[in-house]
Amino acid sequence: MKATVYHGARDVRLETVADPIVKEPTDAIVRVVRAAICGSDLWFYRGVTQWEPGDRTGHEFVGVVDAVGSDVRTVKPGDYVIAPFVSSDGTCEYCHAGLQTSCTHMSNWGDDANGGQAEAVRVPFADGTLVKMAPGMESDPAKLASALTLCDVMGTGHHGVVTADARRGGTVVVIGDGAVGLCGVLSASRVVGAERVIAVGHNAKRLELARAFGATHTFNSHDDGVAGEILELTQGGAHSVVEAVGNQESMELGLELARPGGTMSFVGVPHNVQNLPLRPLFVKNVSLHGALAPTRAYVETLMDYVMRDAIDPSRVFDLTLPLDRVAEGYQAMDERRAIKVVLENGL
Amino acid sequence: MKATVYHGARDVRLETVADPIVKEPTDAIVRVVRAAICGSDLWFYRGVTQWEPGDRTGHEFVGVVDAVGSDVRTVKPGDYVIAPFVSSDGTCEYCHAGLQTSCTHMSNWGDDANGGQAEAVRVPFADGTLVKMAPGMESDPAKLASALTLCDVMGTGHHGVVTADARRGGTVVVIGDGAVGLCGVLSASRVVGAERVIAVGHNAKRLELARAFGATHTFNSHDDGVAGEILELTQGGAHSVVEAVGNQESMELGLELARPGGTMSFVGVPHNVQNLPLRPLFVKNVSLHGALAPTRAYVETLMDYVMRDAIDPSRVFDLTLPLDRVAEGYQAMDERRAIKVVLENGL
Repeated sequence: MKATVYHGARDVRLETVADPIVKEPTDAIVRVVRAAICGSDLWFYRGVTQWEPGDRTGHEFVGVVDAVGSDVRTVKPGDYVIAPFVSSDGTCEYCHAGLQTSCTHMSNWGDDANGGQAEAVRVPFADGTLVKMAPGMESDPAKLASALTLCDVMGTGHHGVVTADARRGGTVVVIGDGAVGLCGVLSASRVVGAERVIAVGHNAKRLELARAFGATHTFNSHDDGVAGEILELTQGGAHSVVEAVGNQESMELGLELARPGGTMSFVGVPHNVQNLPLRPLFVKNVSLHGALAPTRAYVETLMDYVMRDAIDPSRVFDLTLPLDRVAEGYQAMDERRAIKVVLENGL
Repeated sequence: MKATVYHGARDVRLETVADPIVKEPTDAIVRVVRAAICGSDLWFYRGVTQWEPGDRTGHEFVGVVDAVGSDVRTVKPGDYVIAPFVSSDGTCEYCHAGLQTSCTHMSNWGDDANGGQAEAVRVPFADGTLVKMAPGMESDPAKLASALTLCDVMGTGHHGVVTADARRGGTVVVIGDGAVGLCGVLSASRVVGAERVIAVGHNAKRLELARAFGATHTFNSHDDGVAGEILELTQGGAHSVVEAVGNQESMELGLELARPGGTMSFVGVPHNVQNLPLRPLFVKNVSLHGALAPTRAYVETLMDYVMRDAIDPSRVFDLTLPLDRVAEGYQAMDERRAIKVVLENGL
């Protein structure tokens, strides 16, 4: 089959590799129909995190089950499925607590011979990991793309909102207008039902999408005095802040905008955060809540919102390419020409 | 009257100053009967935080009301009262939320002409700030000393436990065997009812008191392999960690000992924390919860525990001196000869 392979900074290639096979009785083989490129893929793509040449890439994919091991009960060949960005056994303490990213059998895609930007993937612990799509989801292109966001970005944005203690009728600030931040806006507005959703970004087009996703206020972080304006608007800060960037400036801004007694979640993978200022946390009794989203915990709920047309997270994809043009997709995201790329392989 | 005045590093003196008077109709004048020296007083005493010569010291005191302004309703002359370590109006959004340290009228003792290590104090917003002692509390020496802990250390330890999401039957790690850490152990064990309370310190005598306060396990942080032992004991970390030291090592240890999905509170005033490691927060979905304790919110509840003999936080005091020997008290704490000093002035 074909799979995307990392060769070095800004060098990924679709290559012929061995077909995946069922190794464990709990495995499933999934033929990928849609895969995505994630903002976090840019860390290795740009050489910021060190990967080994030969590593497979991609941790967001949906597809159709091709084969299952003898112990698999919940999915069968022909089922359309959503694969969260890590596998999980579904039976351990952490899975029961809805914290599948800490599953005792958790494994990542994308950092070994098992990436999602490929024609097929071996999925460990298929019963714990995979979720069957709602009937008909695969045949509606927008809903199929929305299903793909449930692997990571929509679930991650939602996790940020939930762990920021966002409440119906409340105020939520979302910092970051990447796909995760935009999905956070969508969750805060349409899932949780916050009354005021304040999006902070620096890209006019993305902030426009934030408005469409339910942001009541948008701010360009490059403008002067943004923090002061938001503090005035909220009369002292927001109860819930979702930090969806992961750098020093965004963390500092988020802590500044958190109301006393409030919560800031940070769902952007932290990079180059040199020194988190503890004083605002201390003095204001603000909680800081990480982070690595157990998207598996949210798939069913969010899929229901998608099927009821209550949310349409597929709109974060603004570039669609066939799988064999994956390298172009990385370039477009690296150069910020695209928010998020979807790769098609069949259907 | 006499009051303690800061003159420079390791130089505090009891001096004659002007008597406090009712300035605002919401003021009360409290004649101090017991005051304490706090671990956090050592920061200015040692010159780590910069104070101005002439500043008054002390933020923990209990006493008897001497005079009240015309608007004061809840206390009257002759009442014995507990003064939390900040004043609060009792009427704002934050006071209603039990976050009196963020009160819009909050003011500190000890950093202006109004310190608690003195014969008397002017208390702003007396109705919001002061709590009348339970009947007879003032006439029982141990309970009177316990009342003094409710100003700060017992309330702060309890706040750490509550904000670490400690639960009846659960596991709590308390890092630090100073007065706040010890009070955290007492709260976790006797107020919240945690089943396993693991105290980490480095002073054998204090860890013995931690045992008396209900610690089921004690560890000396200077021993090798403590983190590994606690991770083994807890099979992967504690749901609740209370960090009651405030330095780089204790914060790192706390984050290491937090279980995935758990919470670490930090109630030690952070000093010299150069770089909080975000990765364990991110990967383990651990919450970090500050911190500055609204002890006013807990006075009534904890006083009830004291009066029922369910807790005896007065045991954190291991040196009693008359107020005029306040300088000796600071020396004893600076040299770690005392955990915590109580200063007597009458009764």
